[in-house]
Amino acid sequence: MAGIKRYKKEDLETYCLGATVSMEFLNACPQHVTKVFVHSAFYESETKEKICRICEQNQIPMEINDKAFSILSQKENCFVIAVVRKYFCELDSKASHVVLVNPSNAGNAGTIIRSALGFGVPNIAIIRPAVDLFDPKVIRASMGALSRVNFRYYDSWEEYVNKEGAGTRHFYPFMLDGSTLLHETKIEKPFSLVMGNEATGLPAEFSKIGCPVRIEHGHRIDSLNLPIATSIGLYEATKGDF
Amino acid sequence: MAGIKRYKKEDLETYCLGATVSMEFLNACPQHVTKVFVHSAFYESETKEKICRICEQNQIPMEINDKAFSILSQKENCFVIAVVRKYFCELDSKASHVVLVNPSNAGNAGTIIRSALGFGVPNIAIIRPAVDLFDPKVIRASMGALSRVNFRYYDSWEEYVNKEGAGTRHFYPFMLDGSTLLHETKIEKPFSLVMGNEATGLPAEFSKIGCPVRIEHGHRIDSLNLPIATSIGLYEATKGDF
Repeated sequence: MAGIKRYKKEDLETYCLGATVSMEFLNACPQHVTKVFVHSAFYESETKEKICRICEQNQIPMEINDKAFSILSQKENCFVIAVVRKYFCELDSKASHVVLVNPSNAGNAGTIIRSALGFGVPNIAIIRPAVDLFDPKVIRASMGALSRVNFRYYDSWEEYVNKEGAGTRHFYPFMLDGSTLLHETKIEKPFSLVMGNEATGLPAEFSKIGCPVRIEHGHRIDSLNLPIATSIGLYEATKGDF
Repeated sequence: MAGIKRYKKEDLETYCLGATVSMEFLNACPQHVTKVFVHSAFYESETKEKICRICEQNQIPMEINDKAFSILSQKENCFVIAVVRKYFCELDSKASHVVLVNPSNAGNAGTIIRSALGFGVPNIAIIRPAVDLFDPKVIRASMGALSRVNFRYYDSWEEYVNKEGAGTRHFYPFMLDGSTLLHETKIEKPFSLVMGNEATGLPAEFSKIGCPVRIEHGHRIDSLNLPIATSIGLYEATKGDF
């Protein structure tokens, strides 16, 4: 139909590509879903019934529109696309956070969001410049977990600290030359696990902030990938919680 | 040139796409590199000098061949492709292993290989059916780490155990309903961390093998992604080693 275009970050709407990801948004925040495209080849199934029911209950229009899929999706197995109006969230200032400083890769950001939700830390701060979390690639990599976390952008580390850092928050910057080993560090709550950019890590000045930690590994690789380092931090910080 | 074709798993040669990945193979196992393609746009640099030197020392032919890049690489920033003759390795039977049962995703396999190398466990067993580790997508996702690990395929779990499981090896199947929590489990060496397929996990019968463990996380996601679960296992099993 006229008006359906590939996603651009200045758009006011974004897309959940696939039934699983769309279902997550329909379940978690139907108020943000403005429309659902369904492919004519989408077979009858429990998932289809659920989607129809949620759309009906929330007065979300459904539309069979194969053209939308050829424009928006590169994957052959995509039969549902939920259109989501972008929204704004605040972090829970008293809760623990994951802070991503200048993250650049959409797949990594999505994987981290899913891990953060899994480990019970659904508050994600993003320091600009940074990847757009509403990018359909992020939403897809998060497997829809984006719908269940709070996330907020800050123009600088200082802005984040001024807004969220008051009181008893504990900062743990993850650095290759962090002064203490993660597994020997007691992570106090509420915590902020602070992770740098994929290629460059955190700027050196973070070594003076809070308690810089490093994840022990051998010297045969330069560094762990960002979702893995973040998830190991989350695992260590939350073990015993579940 | 005639003869350059997209990779297929029955081929006898595979490709390292990109200068970094190619350098890893040239450094780790130049004897397996049969040729290096260089793009005419590859700028003079330290990396280029190093590649030329290693090729000269090891009598590896270098060839400027832009066509090879348009056939083999989808990425615009790929200027070097090392051609690698496939080889066979044995695992170190006395060392700790990562065992991947029916892994299906190339990117995940590469990421796991890199983590395993990083955590000092460069012995990877693969139980068929499984992704082809020589796929250029695996090599690229491993950032070349594949060149520095031993890996071997087994037709079944029984074949792996018969060949590698003698003596004091300790098996830790990772299962969503594992009987002990990872962080409360003492991982004894040599260990085998046993990880299931991305979508289906390990078959239920693994709950009777060794010490099945689970990674604690909340109920808001079904499971962690496979490279993250494997890396958390590796982190926990090796902390204090480095």
